[in-house]
Amino acid sequence: MKDKGFITSGERNGEKVTGFDKGNSPFEYMGDQVKNQKIAFTTTNGTQAIEKSKGAKKVIIGSFLNVTAVTRYLLMSESNILVVCAGWKGKVNLEDTLFAGAIVENLRNHIEPDCDAPLAAQHLYNLAKNDMVKFLSNSSHVKRLNRLNIHKDIEFCLTPDQYPILPILSGDILVAR
Amino acid sequence: MKDKGFITSGERNGEKVTGFDKGNSPFEYMGDQVKNQKIAFTTTNGTQAIEKSKGAKKVIIGSFLNVTAVTRYLLMSESNILVVCAGWKGKVNLEDTLFAGAIVENLRNHIEPDCDAPLAAQHLYNLAKNDMVKFLSNSSHVKRLNRLNIHKDIEFCLTPDQYPILPILSGDILVAR
Repeated sequence: MKDKGFITSGERNGEKVTGFDKGNSPFEYMGDQVKNQKIAFTTTNGTQAIEKSKGAKKVIIGSFLNVTAVTRYLLMSESNILVVCAGWKGKVNLEDTLFAGAIVENLRNHIEPDCDAPLAAQHLYNLAKNDMVKFLSNSSHVKRLNRLNIHKDIEFCLTPDQYPILPILSGDILVAR
Repeated sequence: MKDKGFITSGERNGEKVTGFDKGNSPFEYMGDQVKNQKIAFTTTNGTQAIEKSKGAKKVIIGSFLNVTAVTRYLLMSESNILVVCAGWKGKVNLEDTLFAGAIVENLRNHIEPDCDAPLAAQHLYNLAKNDMVKFLSNSSHVKRLNRLNIHKDIEFCLTPDQYPILPILSGDILVAR
């Protein structure tokens, strides 16, 4: 991919892949470092979740960093909504569930849950929202990340609305809108 | 199965199956009605969850009605524990998650969660435990059951420790222990 002009990026089990230009920390993707660049990105769970979602009418990428942009897009949408939580090593992690819960909370007057999973996520979000970092400090995923010294990444990723953009899947490419 | 001396029982989508002796209400299975009888039972989710769990070393059946018996058994066990939530029409429901959370809470000093799902269930149980009926009154499953007029069943099933027994799978048969 490097030959084709891509920045190569990604992680396996939370650590940068040998030979790749960049790892998984958001701080490696700021400002001029990546402006107008194409990035080839692979992660343990995220890119697989996107791959498995390709049957959907639209695939958008959300996190707390763009939660309002995601909410606005979904409020305008008339399709069914499935929040796919990427997880950690193929398993459930609470950060994802909290974000799903934030979406349910934001859309609560506009949706009819299809099962109790959205309600569970909503309860957890409301329980955690006043101090998500503290709430998550007891979760297994964050404990693992602490071992990898990237607590700073997590704290940043839990900060709402740092970006107004919405990545949308177009073919094999995520395009910011 | 009737020819073989079994009571035939079960539900599909929450309602008794035509031609069967009994449905899914616990009140149909009390005292002399079923004492020393063999019951052939099928449900929308529960019996499938048991079928899919057959690879396990031991399969035991738990609910709030025997939560202490389940906890005691698991405390003595040295195996990994997987709580399989049967669900509702193949989907997540909160009652199951609350029960899973109660098990995590009871075993909290004895287990190392394998992902964040047990922690999420534990948080939800602790949020709900003082009034589970009220907590669940907003869940989609209970709303559906309300339509079927079996709120009484739910309330009973949320009552801890009505029974000291533990059903254990032995071949194709659940045997009370």
